Amino acid sequence: MYSDELDHSDHHHRDGSNSGMTSSPKRSFLIYWLIGSVTILVLSIILNIVLIGLQFKSGSSVDTTQKPRNIIFMIGDGFGPAAQSFARYMMKNSASKITTLALDKYLVGSSKTYSSSSDVTDSAAGATAFSCAQKTYNNAIGVDKNKKPCGTLLEAAIKKGMVTGLVATNPVTDATPAAFSAHVDHRNKQDTIAFQQIKQLSDIFGTSTKKYGVDLLMGGGRAYFLPKESDGSQRKDSTDVISTAKDLGYQYVENRNELSKIEKLPILGLFALEEMKYNIDRDDEEIEKEPTLTEMTKKALQLITKESTEKNRGFFLMVEGSRIDHCAHANDISCQWQEVTEYNEAFQYVMDYIKENPDTLVVSTADHETGGVTINRDVDYVNQYIFYTEKIRAVTKSTEYIASKITNTTDFAQVASILNTYGIPDLTMDEFNIMQTIRTPFLFAIDEVINRRARIGFTTRGHTAVDVNVYSYGPSSTLFNGNQENTDIGQKIATLLGLDLNSITEQVNTYMNK
Amino acid sequence: MYSDELDHSDHHHRDGSNSGMTSSPKRSFLIYWLIGSVTILVLSIILNIVLIGLQFKSGSSVDTTQKPRNIIFMIGDGFGPAAQSFARYMMKNSASKITTLALDKYLVGSSKTYSSSSDVTDSAAGATAFSCAQKTYNNAIGVDKNKKPCGTLLEAAIKKGMVTGLVATNPVTDATPAAFSAHVDHRNKQDTIAFQQIKQLSDIFGTSTKKYGVDLLMGGGRAYFLPKESDGSQRKDSTDVISTAKDLGYQYVENRNELSKIEKLPILGLFALEEMKYNIDRDDEEIEKEPTLTEMTKKALQLITKESTEKNRGFFLMVEGSRIDHCAHANDISCQWQEVTEYNEAFQYVMDYIKENPDTLVVSTADHETGGVTINRDVDYVNQYIFYTEKIRAVTKSTEYIASKITNTTDFAQVASILNTYGIPDLTMDEFNIMQTIRTPFLFAIDEVINRRARIGFTTRGHTAVDVNVYSYGPSSTLFNGNQENTDIGQKIATLLGLDLNSITEQVNTYMNK
Repeated sequence: MYSDELDHSDHHHRDGSNSGMTSSPKRSFLIYWLIGSVTILVLSIILNIVLIGLQFKSGSSVDTTQKPRNIIFMIGDGFGPAAQSFARYMMKNSASKITTLALDKYLVGSSKTYSSSSDVTDSAAGATAFSCAQKTYNNAIGVDKNKKPCGTLLEAAIKKGMVTGLVATNPVTDATPAAFSAHVDHRNKQDTIAFQQIKQLSDIFGTSTKKYGVDLLMGGGRAYFLPKESDGSQRKDSTDVISTAKDLGYQYVENRNELSKIEKLPILGLFALEEMKYNIDRDDEEIEKEPTLTEMTKKALQLITKESTEKNRGFFLMVEGSRIDHCAHANDISCQWQEVTEYNEAFQYVMDYIKENPDTLVVSTADHETGGVTINRDVDYVNQYIFYTEKIRAVTKSTEYIASKITNTTDFAQVASILNTYGIPDLTMDEFNIMQTIRTPFLFAIDEVINRRARIGFTTRGHTAVDVNVYSYGPSSTLFNGNQENTDIGQKIATLLGLDLNSITEQVNTYMNK
Repeated sequence: MYSDELDHSDHHHRDGSNSGMTSSPKRSFLIYWLIGSVTILVLSIILNIVLIGLQFKSGSSVDTTQKPRNIIFMIGDGFGPAAQSFARYMMKNSASKITTLALDKYLVGSSKTYSSSSDVTDSAAGATAFSCAQKTYNNAIGVDKNKKPCGTLLEAAIKKGMVTGLVATNPVTDATPAAFSAHVDHRNKQDTIAFQQIKQLSDIFGTSTKKYGVDLLMGGGRAYFLPKESDGSQRKDSTDVISTAKDLGYQYVENRNELSKIEKLPILGLFALEEMKYNIDRDDEEIEKEPTLTEMTKKALQLITKESTEKNRGFFLMVEGSRIDHCAHANDISCQWQEVTEYNEAFQYVMDYIKENPDTLVVSTADHETGGVTINRDVDYVNQYIFYTEKIRAVTKSTEYIASKITNTTDFAQVASILNTYGIPDLTMDEFNIMQTIRTPFLFAIDEVINRRARIGFTTRGHTAVDVNVYSYGPSSTLFNGNQENTDIGQKIATLLGLDLNSITEQVNTYMNK
């Protein structure tokens, strides 16, 4: 229609040039001026329509539909909404009186965590829901309901030539990082997972110019990489997966100091045989040995950004605050508070990074809630509208650590003395008697003393089905608004990065069925 | 700069007209065409720049900065995030298999609920945080930390000439509606509150053309309006507040049938002496007598919309799902589920309303969480990743109701028989023995049986400090994104409606100090 109008105007213009050209300079000036004007006006209208159209598209996409080049996906394992509220109350009731943590402003929605086998998911199904954008059964690592391997976000990102990384404070072979980088029917096959993370990813996705798969793997879990002959190994075979990694080109580091010297990818960092230390249990010696979650995140982003810039490729980085879950399983609120605080610090670093790199999106959520913690509990059927953060702040070690110091749990004097050493003074005989009724392990008895004093309640030593929070910032962050399926989060990330999980599923199955 | 260019082009055009006008028709055609083109092109560029500027401005304001004409403020008393998750699991595991409730898509943020006197708020301080946009002490109704009356959203809306209403399933004199319409130093002064809601609001805000204050007041609480001589009265004086209301022009109704006949404002509807019935306890006779929360919301919006349209004024309506809190205090999950479901239905009605009335904003939140409910609990120290919604669905009455039928709580046969009647069959002797250990009232013993069987945990019979969800839809809904203070919600509503709470504070204090 617009080209018709153009033709018509052009035609009219020729007519004009024949009829009045020489009769009067003034008239011909007006006619030609008019013809020129109409032509340009029509072109201008078309241009305007096109521009407005583009504008509407880009106008609404400044925040919502503009696609990020890079995605940082953060997962707080077992990190429920109440744990964030509680960490904030710890700050509010400190000298700082701060009432906003790093994550708070960026709350955009929540996630439904149920798996295909239970309304109460485990971390394996929870992570696979993200990595494969599919609901699967509890214990499944990168496999679907029928135990068939499913292509993951990480694999698709590698395939696409993006720079990729996984960071965790758990063994890197544990459920969450494993679900992005391995395919086994049960999460307990951690030695197989380690091998797949290094060798299988390289076999499937390596190229002539880049032999390895994932660019960066950092966390605990050295035990699953060391051959069975080595001290601390949990492998059933003699495969030295660290050597395999080195052969593929990985630089391998075991501690904070070695990590600081690394200047490029690829890197395999295994900072503990099993889990890395709880933040609350870090002492000077340990601080030298193990980087914190925030330090790993910082280093990972430095190395990845360098590679990403040099290769002119986007990146996908998954960062897990793994041990919020473990503190919650232990019903250890002091421990959980400090893990949540560390997670908020890592998020703050990521936010600072995004301010400098606005083409990066961060999405932070959890696989599920653990412990069923709430803020206030009745003690001996008495309900009061108060809880005591100072009782939590005084505790200096995890209850797992404190319990390990007690040799005779029925010796009141010893128990009271050790509790006093770690910030739980003045144990009463009533409390000691209650401790004797708590089912083992004994750390739960210590937790019960702390939690009664602080008036903090847990409902389980396992997981709950409570929705978890979704935080996001950066291009397309509003895509994560509202309450959504955990699988939606994975699918949205895939869509934003233009990843085709189905073709990866085919490629992985072809390899694994050989 | 653009006008300079225009002048320059205009100047050039005159030069052209002098030098080549008559020398060649073809050349002059080209020159004039060019001159016309350049003129229009420059104008077009300017137009484009202006349009793009406007586009950017309006593009970002479509959803976020446009102000609503009307606000519907919904409050689920004691409605924490876990209760919404749980209600959704009840639907998911029903024949419908629905995994999204009415509120879910509209989750935009969360609210920090602490009061000035405790990190665990009560409903009075919680509601005053909304109504006056100020933190105050627990039990405070429309007064600040120093017990000085503070102007409320409702009062400011009345003052501004807006149409106003309060709907609750509690007594309208209870904390939440009271904090919008009365000023007393303790929530238990419900007879004073009733008088203030009718007489004081009219005295302060009535005009020669409209004698009364609030246009619509619906809920329970007739006991606080009836003179002490009347059956069921809870007043300490002989004031008949219902008569006072009628004298001011209110139409008064007591049941569903009478309500249906009302066609205009103002209206006072008191459908129960105290609280209205739990949804789970409604039977045919009661359904005739009491409207549901959704029915009241629907009727309120019909009447308010009519008045709002006729007067050409915006409206402010507060709707409270009051009794989620009571079920949670009872740790009665069947009861809570049905109250949450009813609240979602009322929200759905409001959403349908907004689709027809897009100048209306809804904000839904809670004053605090009650009960510390989570979805999964350990039973006898055994944790499993499962809970049983069918055990909850089978229960046919509130445990308060069931307990009222038991005359001898130590009679196993009677207890087992009555529990069986209401959907809790096959009571075991182990369960009965546990019931005997639970501190009274006996309804908690019944709850313990249900909650053990369903594996649902509560941590308190009181409130918790867990953040509560914020849902919003309509113009400026994104203003409620992220984690925010409860007082911020009140302030945002005041700002959106252009309400000046400070001047109302002065006016109320002037009246009350007389």
